[in-house]
Amino acid sequence: MSEYIEHDKNGVSVGLVEKKFYGFAEPPHEMTLDSGRKLGPVTIAYETYGRLDRDKSNAVLILHALSGDSHVAGYYSREDPRPGWWDIMVGPGKGIDTEKYFVVCSNILGSCMGSTGPVSIHPETGRPYGLDFPFVTIGDMVRAQKALMDHLGVERILSVVGGSIGGMQVLEWCVRYPEMVLSAIPLATTSKHSALAIAFNEVARQAIMADPRWNSGSYYDGPRPDLGLAVARMIGHITYLSDESMRLKFGRRLQGKNNFSFNFDADFQVESYLRYQGKRFVERFDANSFLYITKAADYYDLEIQHDSGSLVKAFSKARAKFLVVSFTSDWLYPTYQSRTLVRAMKKNGLDVSFCEIEAKWGHDAFLMPNERLTALIRGFLERVRRESRE
Amino acid sequence: MSEYIEHDKNGVSVGLVEKKFYGFAEPPHEMTLDSGRKLGPVTIAYETYGRLDRDKSNAVLILHALSGDSHVAGYYSREDPRPGWWDIMVGPGKGIDTEKYFVVCSNILGSCMGSTGPVSIHPETGRPYGLDFPFVTIGDMVRAQKALMDHLGVERILSVVGGSIGGMQVLEWCVRYPEMVLSAIPLATTSKHSALAIAFNEVARQAIMADPRWNSGSYYDGPRPDLGLAVARMIGHITYLSDESMRLKFGRRLQGKNNFSFNFDADFQVESYLRYQGKRFVERFDANSFLYITKAADYYDLEIQHDSGSLVKAFSKARAKFLVVSFTSDWLYPTYQSRTLVRAMKKNGLDVSFCEIEAKWGHDAFLMPNERLTALIRGFLERVRRESRE
Repeated sequence: MSEYIEHDKNGVSVGLVEKKFYGFAEPPHEMTLDSGRKLGPVTIAYETYGRLDRDKSNAVLILHALSGDSHVAGYYSREDPRPGWWDIMVGPGKGIDTEKYFVVCSNILGSCMGSTGPVSIHPETGRPYGLDFPFVTIGDMVRAQKALMDHLGVERILSVVGGSIGGMQVLEWCVRYPEMVLSAIPLATTSKHSALAIAFNEVARQAIMADPRWNSGSYYDGPRPDLGLAVARMIGHITYLSDESMRLKFGRRLQGKNNFSFNFDADFQVESYLRYQGKRFVERFDANSFLYITKAADYYDLEIQHDSGSLVKAFSKARAKFLVVSFTSDWLYPTYQSRTLVRAMKKNGLDVSFCEIEAKWGHDAFLMPNERLTALIRGFLERVRRESRE
Repeated sequence: MSEYIEHDKNGVSVGLVEKKFYGFAEPPHEMTLDSGRKLGPVTIAYETYGRLDRDKSNAVLILHALSGDSHVAGYYSREDPRPGWWDIMVGPGKGIDTEKYFVVCSNILGSCMGSTGPVSIHPETGRPYGLDFPFVTIGDMVRAQKALMDHLGVERILSVVGGSIGGMQVLEWCVRYPEMVLSAIPLATTSKHSALAIAFNEVARQAIMADPRWNSGSYYDGPRPDLGLAVARMIGHITYLSDESMRLKFGRRLQGKNNFSFNFDADFQVESYLRYQGKRFVERFDANSFLYITKAADYYDLEIQHDSGSLVKAFSKARAKFLVVSFTSDWLYPTYQSRTLVRAMKKNGLDVSFCEIEAKWGHDAFLMPNERLTALIRGFLERVRRESRE
């Protein structure tokens, strides 16, 4: 079942959703990856919300970032304590209104949230792939999503929406399958990582690989590289915030003590926060998946991916209408990178709306409640829908 | 010997210097630290350059940052491949002219470059302190420097100069020993770490402590936590650069290959650079010292250190003339933090010059060749010297 069934008194969706799986494609059940290697069988975990209308014109595909999953909104059960990762945006009456749109979200290839990745069983050995898992690119992730859309009978997508690494997939969709994509909303993203973004990812990877429990990726039978993965996540969390948001959120406040410990305990609240985020992350995420997905993001370069050597040429294939959004305090994918995208789109005469939203919360801003963002997305989808019927 | 003896044809100093040691103080050879614990015996490694003049009025004290040492300029021998860490600024005819000034630089307490720190022998056990080393604060470091100045017979210091954590020591000198300090040059620094700066330090510490070879700080008899310390250093290096400097220095250039490796090798030059910096660092630095010094920097808060609860009140004790310098692309100690310092100084009627230097190189800018910085420091020292004689 894939519909919202009721709302609570506060209007918060308590609709139940179910994670589904799609094994593709037709035999031989495998895909040839950008690296040239073959991968199969391939399973894609996905969720859908709302109903595909009769003329199949209301599909919205949401693409998640590094550590996300297909559970974009709603709850799995009445006891489920937390809704999906973008429940503030997706649901009945929300910015992406599941009473109007048929929303699809799938877990990316290489992840560990149900889709095939390094934690999956290697058919040749009967054991988890580990580092035998082939490299996957942003392009490979998008091709797997395309197979899922084919399976769901969706031939044209009203909008592809995503932030961060999800935004890279949005851009890739527009260039790789231009005839399928009516509109696109890339949020807080870039067509290629800066040296700074690569540097942060590389240090995070080094933290994982420095953990002896990582054991060259073969740890599924024993203890996992939790300490290394926690450090990697802590590095990530710093890049998702901003100087200002950390000052507002933590400042120099101490952790339940009036004095310094004069040892290596967490004295400051920001230290406890990071340690907590690290610990929580290792309970739900796989270290090898972290390595594969960050490397895929680092490799991504839209203009090279499409053999054109120019971002303007790369977008010459696109047909979508765009809503590009950046956030003032995002220093991982700063506004100048969105402006570069917008310029290349406009040089191709594409229909582009661009908005830089004033926000304190750094890169994380795209996931935080923001009335302006909600209104922008709602209005853009309504316009695209209306124009698609004209 | 502590003088420059010759110049090469390019005017680069090839003067030889010698590292010296000072054990203090008078028996019982120990100091009581800010934490209340006692430490002794205490050794301070230092170097001097130039000559103290007859009226002892030309001493310049240079204070180093996290991983620095007393070797601020010159060479130890004719075969020495590299000069001291600020050789571009310190030497005959340079910004801090050793023909005019008597320059002193000492290694900070808690470090591993000759002064007493966690790698030193604990007199009670005959083995390296490790985590038995007591916590030291920025204030403790400064008190050790004061003892050294007493030993050298310097009663008034023409200028205390330092960047980053060295700049914190500069500020501490001005407030703790106001009668001794005629002028001060805090570069790229702050009166207290932001949550962001604490966060980076904490993740770096976690990287060290996650390394099983760290072994709660007891590793001096066996393998060292090189992998953890390398990750910690890599994190540091990112914060020393800037988005722009990394784009200029590395961009997305690949490491001697035309194609991606599709494995976890260093594909990008920025990855190789970071790995190299990490590897080089572990050859010269001690992991426990890294923990102690970063924690001392995180703890430092000038207004609390002096029980005033206000930066304006803290500076009410200072008498020095100030040259405060920040750098446009420094996001570890951004310009707004220097402006906060300057405001508090000015409210006390202090003689303050402030300059934000346009620089691409991020926090590292204070160590890079910069004609403007050199001219500023040279001019400021000349003015202070002249005025001190009037």
